[in-house]
Amino acid sequence: MKRSEAVAEAAITLLAERGMRGLTHRAVDEAAGLPPGSTSNLARTRAALLELTLSRLTELEERVFAEMMTGGRPALGDLPGQMAKVLQIQLRDHRRTLARYELALEATRRPELRRIYDQAGRRFRDPAVALLTAAGSRDPVRHARQLVAFGEGIMFDAIAGAGSEPSLDELRVAMRELLAGMLDGQPQSSR
Amino acid sequence: MKRSEAVAEAAITLLAERGMRGLTHRAVDEAAGLPPGSTSNLARTRAALLELTLSRLTELEERVFAEMMTGGRPALGDLPGQMAKVLQIQLRDHRRTLARYELALEATRRPELRRIYDQAGRRFRDPAVALLTAAGSRDPVRHARQLVAFGEGIMFDAIAGAGSEPSLDELRVAMRELLAGMLDGQPQSSR
Repeated sequence: MKRSEAVAEAAITLLAERGMRGLTHRAVDEAAGLPPGSTSNLARTRAALLELTLSRLTELEERVFAEMMTGGRPALGDLPGQMAKVLQIQLRDHRRTLARYELALEATRRPELRRIYDQAGRRFRDPAVALLTAAGSRDPVRHARQLVAFGEGIMFDAIAGAGSEPSLDELRVAMRELLAGMLDGQPQSSR
Repeated sequence: MKRSEAVAEAAITLLAERGMRGLTHRAVDEAAGLPPGSTSNLARTRAALLELTLSRLTELEERVFAEMMTGGRPALGDLPGQMAKVLQIQLRDHRRTLARYELALEATRRPELRRIYDQAGRRFRDPAVALLTAAGSRDPVRHARQLVAFGEGIMFDAIAGAGSEPSLDELRVAMRELLAGMLDGQPQSSR
């Protein structure tokens, strides 16, 4: 593992376990088992450390997403099942998702972090638009936004909110109902 | 305004503007325009300050919710429109919602905060179950969870995520589609 990866990994763990207050250059050195000053050498400022961490987190989440997509797009027929699986995989990793939420909130106060976060967001949204277009949506950009918001809400609720963790079956039914509401009742030939 | 309300108000603003790192007893004294030590007198520990803040935040959000509900339950016919309005009102108040998200993340690390957060959550979920039952849902508890998650996701996406702020019309259409997917295709006589 490269040193920058070890630093980002430790920062992700600290953010999840202790929040923004627990993330300091010194704590990252300790958590990563690196000599004092290592994190500072790599990312001098707090802003730089946050940006490095979010960039790495995005890279890791994209890898999971890409693995899911191996073998091409999911068959349209089982779109709800595929989406349920993507959500379940993300739900398992509380650590990364909590760190992402911490960084999302911090991004409301740091334009440079916002830029990285939003750019990463688009890399998940664009495939959703393509999938919904293929599924016959008449308004795929709006529907992709609703799909992403729904997934985000289910995750937030289960991981940080007052909700409980849904089963794969519950996720599949929820996704089926969401898609039915978006795609039914509109004239289309592709379903 | 009671002193405890002024302290909570200042803490909510600090959480939204500066995050958990910006919330200190001293910063609250300053932001609330109170003599040094006032916040400590009221809430000795950090935990007590967080609990006071979340309790007050919950009280304020419940008041908004109760005002929306004045005159009894919304007519079932315009359920999507009513839900869109509740969401839009919450979306306008970035400050409170950001503070709530900060406290939700902190609650993953503090059981006492979790207890307050989840208890407050139930006060929003129970009416949702009642509404969906009245609307003819065959699985109102699950559907209420989906409805709350959807609303939460739309808010998180617009306020802290990579999404943009939806218009009232977009919210109404989104809610109409969500409800249609949950309630259509099931045998029922009440719609």
